[in-house]
Amino acid sequence: MIKTDILIIGAGPTGLFTVFEAGLLKLKCHLIDALAQPGGQCSEIYPKKPIYDIPGFPEILAGDLTKNLLEQGKQFEPGFTLGERAETIEKLEDGSFIVTTNKGTKHHAPVVAIAGGLGSFEPRKPKIDNLEFYEDKGVEYMIKDPEVYRNKKVVISGGGDSALDWSIFLANIASEVTLVHRRNEFRGALDSVEKVKELKLLGKINLITPAEVTAIHGNQNVEGVTIEKEGENILLEADHFIPLFGLSPKLGPISDWGLEIEKNAIKVNTLDYQTNIPGVFAIGDVNTYEGKLKLILCGFHEATLMCQSAYKIINPGKKYVLKYTTVSGVDGFDGSRKEAPKAVVQAIN
Amino acid sequence: MIKTDILIIGAGPTGLFTVFEAGLLKLKCHLIDALAQPGGQCSEIYPKKPIYDIPGFPEILAGDLTKNLLEQGKQFEPGFTLGERAETIEKLEDGSFIVTTNKGTKHHAPVVAIAGGLGSFEPRKPKIDNLEFYEDKGVEYMIKDPEVYRNKKVVISGGGDSALDWSIFLANIASEVTLVHRRNEFRGALDSVEKVKELKLLGKINLITPAEVTAIHGNQNVEGVTIEKEGENILLEADHFIPLFGLSPKLGPISDWGLEIEKNAIKVNTLDYQTNIPGVFAIGDVNTYEGKLKLILCGFHEATLMCQSAYKIINPGKKYVLKYTTVSGVDGFDGSRKEAPKAVVQAIN
Repeated sequence: MIKTDILIIGAGPTGLFTVFEAGLLKLKCHLIDALAQPGGQCSEIYPKKPIYDIPGFPEILAGDLTKNLLEQGKQFEPGFTLGERAETIEKLEDGSFIVTTNKGTKHHAPVVAIAGGLGSFEPRKPKIDNLEFYEDKGVEYMIKDPEVYRNKKVVISGGGDSALDWSIFLANIASEVTLVHRRNEFRGALDSVEKVKELKLLGKINLITPAEVTAIHGNQNVEGVTIEKEGENILLEADHFIPLFGLSPKLGPISDWGLEIEKNAIKVNTLDYQTNIPGVFAIGDVNTYEGKLKLILCGFHEATLMCQSAYKIINPGKKYVLKYTTVSGVDGFDGSRKEAPKAVVQAIN
Repeated sequence: MIKTDILIIGAGPTGLFTVFEAGLLKLKCHLIDALAQPGGQCSEIYPKKPIYDIPGFPEILAGDLTKNLLEQGKQFEPGFTLGERAETIEKLEDGSFIVTTNKGTKHHAPVVAIAGGLGSFEPRKPKIDNLEFYEDKGVEYMIKDPEVYRNKKVVISGGGDSALDWSIFLANIASEVTLVHRRNEFRGALDSVEKVKELKLLGKINLITPAEVTAIHGNQNVEGVTIEKEGENILLEADHFIPLFGLSPKLGPISDWGLEIEKNAIKVNTLDYQTNIPGVFAIGDVNTYEGKLKLILCGFHEATLMCQSAYKIINPGKKYVLKYTTVSGVDGFDGSRKEAPKAVVQAIN
């Protein structure tokens, strides 16, 4: 059982900034995310794209924003349960919660903050018989640890940035990388397309287009796939088949938690972004209220106000006086301290 | 008469970010500030101090935050009325407003956003007879244009960073700089104190401590001051006397505008941070509502939501659909365009 003060569901920018604001109040956070790495959409969907409306950044790449937010919160030592989806919530008699993931990991906390963005990102799956049978037996929809593929035969299908970028990355790890796409044209960053061309010429990526994977073979695990190319079937040995057809966000199991839902988002008040379940908050793109804007900067504000109420729930009766970081500095849970240089008081003779 | 869409009172971080958010909605902004430069407290009180709780910045100097926000908004070509205090507001029959400063500058806009922070910064004044008589005739409480002091005799009094830094700066511009402080000890950044020591040794700053300016002389303009040092009077020729005893924020004339005030702040709703006067909003540290936190990041959120309502007031009946800058880019009023690099669609053969 993982124990924490604030259990955050969703490790996108709003969830990550919560770690910092909670830390200032001496509250510890743990984050659950269905994706394999923190950052939410910013890391998974558009890490190399610039955002122009983060206050104070005339331009910042989404991936860099994630890095900065991780850096800003790291002295508060957040915990992570990644690649797992929060599945069920149970309220205990003392008012605290147990949240269990689809892999059975249990988390216990007095406060739950849902920072789930557009929902958990579920992979779009190709229509292949027995696909589900091979899941986690050679079929994967996202890559958590590239080392799993060392010296293996890998078939990737898809025509976007993920398919291109992972083909490039695994070309130096796997013993064989085959990229299958139903069109000849790929859609992605120019340099990714160029790099795949180059690796194809070097024989490091085996490219099959226009084509589709139509069947998977193997007794227990994936041992091969059938690829249909212009009416002909090619049988290919493979240890892994990775369809990268994009992720589509789904509110998912959270919609069964008894929360008030409106337009696929969780209704909250605007005092502290608490839901209809006391102790459960919803912040960032996942929530809705009158006038709501789904902007990252709004999630930052909501996270900050939410932490004040979390403090009161966790420390009943205790008073908290807002301190300014410029004046009071920042004390990390890891013993670090950041503070502004002090003014000197000195005579000039 | 200066005309604009949103008239912003206060050019601190919240006011500056409003320029950007309004610009995305094709609304133009003009800012009034009592200080001589934009940035509010961040520029005037603690430009060299780090802030740790701006989302995405593990650490940023307040002065750099100001620079970044100016850069972020500059393509939307904001106007500025600096060194003047918004004094009166008049509501016209069509619902628009005329705001006049203490120097008589008039501004006309359909929407007014008060982003006044803790209020307008009023200088702390020394107790000297006839001090007011010499204001703008040689007595100044802030330095707007250092060139005014070229080849002049300047007496500065004060013992903090402003007194130290301006003495250093003017040492190379004025013909004579005298720094008067009632104690031998100064309180400021170490390098400022060291620099003043050095300039004193070089004879470029004339230091008189512990001492006070007790009288000002001159027919029309300042011609000299009396300095009392340890019971003795020194008469010194001077063209300018600049007391730098700090600034203290006052809500000031805004408190007579008929706005609902609570605890020295302006009451607003949490839907769009509108005050009891329709068309007048209050955002950032100057406002109050249940759960309010006086943090810069909250001002950013409030500014953003406020702009949506401003849009509806200025474009009645017109619908606005939120666009993401990462997807739609940013079109400046100056003809500039920022946008994410487009994905290419390209065959790999």
